[in-house]
Amino acid sequence: MSDTVQAVRYHGQRDIRLESIPAPKIAPGKVIISPKFCGICGTDLHEYLGGANLIPKPQRPHPITGETYPLTLGHEFSGIVEEVGEGVTKVKPGDRVCVQPIIYDGECLSCQRGLVNCCDRNGFIGLSGWGGGLCEKTMAPESCVKLLPDNVPLEVGALIEPLAVGWHAVDISPWRDNDSVLVLGGGPIGLAVIQVLKGRGCKNIIVSEVSGRRREFALNFGAHHAIDPVSEDLVKRVKDLTNGLGADVAFDAAGVQVAVDTAFLALKARGTLVNIAVWENRAQLHMNEIVFRERSYMGVATYSLGDFEAVIDAISKGNMTPAEMITKKIKLDEVEKEGFSTLIHDKENHVKILVDIEASIRGSS
Amino acid sequence: MSDTVQAVRYHGQRDIRLESIPAPKIAPGKVIISPKFCGICGTDLHEYLGGANLIPKPQRPHPITGETYPLTLGHEFSGIVEEVGEGVTKVKPGDRVCVQPIIYDGECLSCQRGLVNCCDRNGFIGLSGWGGGLCEKTMAPESCVKLLPDNVPLEVGALIEPLAVGWHAVDISPWRDNDSVLVLGGGPIGLAVIQVLKGRGCKNIIVSEVSGRRREFALNFGAHHAIDPVSEDLVKRVKDLTNGLGADVAFDAAGVQVAVDTAFLALKARGTLVNIAVWENRAQLHMNEIVFRERSYMGVATYSLGDFEAVIDAISKGNMTPAEMITKKIKLDEVEKEGFSTLIHDKENHVKILVDIEASIRGSS
Repeated sequence: MSDTVQAVRYHGQRDIRLESIPAPKIAPGKVIISPKFCGICGTDLHEYLGGANLIPKPQRPHPITGETYPLTLGHEFSGIVEEVGEGVTKVKPGDRVCVQPIIYDGECLSCQRGLVNCCDRNGFIGLSGWGGGLCEKTMAPESCVKLLPDNVPLEVGALIEPLAVGWHAVDISPWRDNDSVLVLGGGPIGLAVIQVLKGRGCKNIIVSEVSGRRREFALNFGAHHAIDPVSEDLVKRVKDLTNGLGADVAFDAAGVQVAVDTAFLALKARGTLVNIAVWENRAQLHMNEIVFRERSYMGVATYSLGDFEAVIDAISKGNMTPAEMITKKIKLDEVEKEGFSTLIHDKENHVKILVDIEASIRGSS
Repeated sequence: MSDTVQAVRYHGQRDIRLESIPAPKIAPGKVIISPKFCGICGTDLHEYLGGANLIPKPQRPHPITGETYPLTLGHEFSGIVEEVGEGVTKVKPGDRVCVQPIIYDGECLSCQRGLVNCCDRNGFIGLSGWGGGLCEKTMAPESCVKLLPDNVPLEVGALIEPLAVGWHAVDISPWRDNDSVLVLGGGPIGLAVIQVLKGRGCKNIIVSEVSGRRREFALNFGAHHAIDPVSEDLVKRVKDLTNGLGADVAFDAAGVQVAVDTAFLALKARGTLVNIAVWENRAQLHMNEIVFRERSYMGVATYSLGDFEAVIDAISKGNMTPAEMITKKIKLDEVEKEGFSTLIHDKENHVKILVDIEASIRGSS
């Protein structure tokens, strides 16, 4: 039936279901997209295992979408434009696009300053309502829809979102040409930071990662040095690799207390640790290491206006070649068993698992 | 006897003694000063009550001075040049001066970058050796001795050091003209920050301080608004005073966990909390408040090259008028009973207690 579509929906902790939902009906300013590829994110996994956290619970609808779970998952996706609403001018049916999933009110003082990622009421398509990428058809506001150039494949279009997190972190950090960088963690976001730094010409990228496989990934994506912080003296190694000075900037894509403690020691005086990680507990800081070396700790959150375009442009120009982040492709009905389960039990052999939505439809038809 | 001088010396926790020590003998590149006024600092009090911490213990000599306690106290002082060593050109006998007490090796990578306050082996005259201000005569390297202009009294010369702490913090912070500022704590360093901000044209200085008397001091020294964080809703008040935005920059001169938690909430998105305070325990950060508003936490330490000169110039030009920070004057033999004791039991009625060394000598002769 054409008026229903298949969607992977979140129904609560460890309860996701592939089910039929009404197909979206076009509205002014909106774009209906048939998603083609959609990445599974660590955030999806956290919601599955320990949520709902970001996903709005039944008693607390999201302030902008008004929705609560059950809702469609998937916030890292590309697809084809199927239909555009009245007033839409930037895209037309048949266009290849990816979706910048951030939802913001546009009214709060942060939004007025252009910091839509700091919006008091922000949310994400695929986590807060307005559909999502794990679905045959979904609808998004025109402002969220970004054209992919011809030389950027749809698979890669599904990687723009995590890469934009890395782009944004580097972009607002104090990192400058010729600075040495320490990256904590070689998961998808750590690898995004590495690729962005590499693409922007960074000549000394040091990654700290306990998994040997992930250290290999990091080296393949552009890290110059990969250190195992368990078997090696991270502070000494970083100092050795920076003429004794310490790293200028560190990016924390792990959010592990002991790594933070060590990272501050591996920073130069007046160096900055940029936190991208989401913490469940409080971070505990040895203030002497911060004060007496005048170091800084800086929070960054997702991405803001312009970051998606910048990443798309960098990929199109060949400054980033992220396709090898895709380590597995699965179908819509395999999200739980082949997606989440793999990321739980075999995460060190995977970077990004994509759901191939077209293959899912072909497979089920 | 002319070859001994009276000095207040630290002998360990709660053990300071006024005693005779050998007078300094001039050496090349050095300057002998007769201190006239010397402030008592919170650091002195911490060493007295809970030390030795910064002061080198007998088994661990300071790496630059080679000294351990007992040693002469006093690192906030002015005086008259008595004698100069070979090669000294910047000052001559009779000059009115104050002393920049920071000791650094000049060789480490921080020193090579000009960040002498981040020196791996740094210390302070009056805490780490090389004499101190609570003494009839002391000797310092020429580079530590700063000329006072004619219109800067010697009493005020003893205030340059704490003011330089405030100057440095504001100087390397992201504060810019028209930014609103929240200052945590109205003690001597908080008041120094307020005076520096006022002197540099800040038009919205908000201080959070539990003591009513200290709130009065803060308003007298240039704060535009003083808030009692116990009886008032600090976050709401700060937002009300900043058009709903929150403060651009906050300075923490208190180092109290609950104040830090509140201060982050009172900052705008991408605002910065500048920590000047010395912490005994770890600071614990609610990372969500930092990450999702892209806020920063920045450590600053004492002062670096140029800060003393900048403060002296600002006072000489009338941009800061700090004389009223002096709330009491005592003699050398009253440091424990009238100095430390007052700061312990009646600190909210005092900002800066000065030891009047000349009066002490007159009194004892």
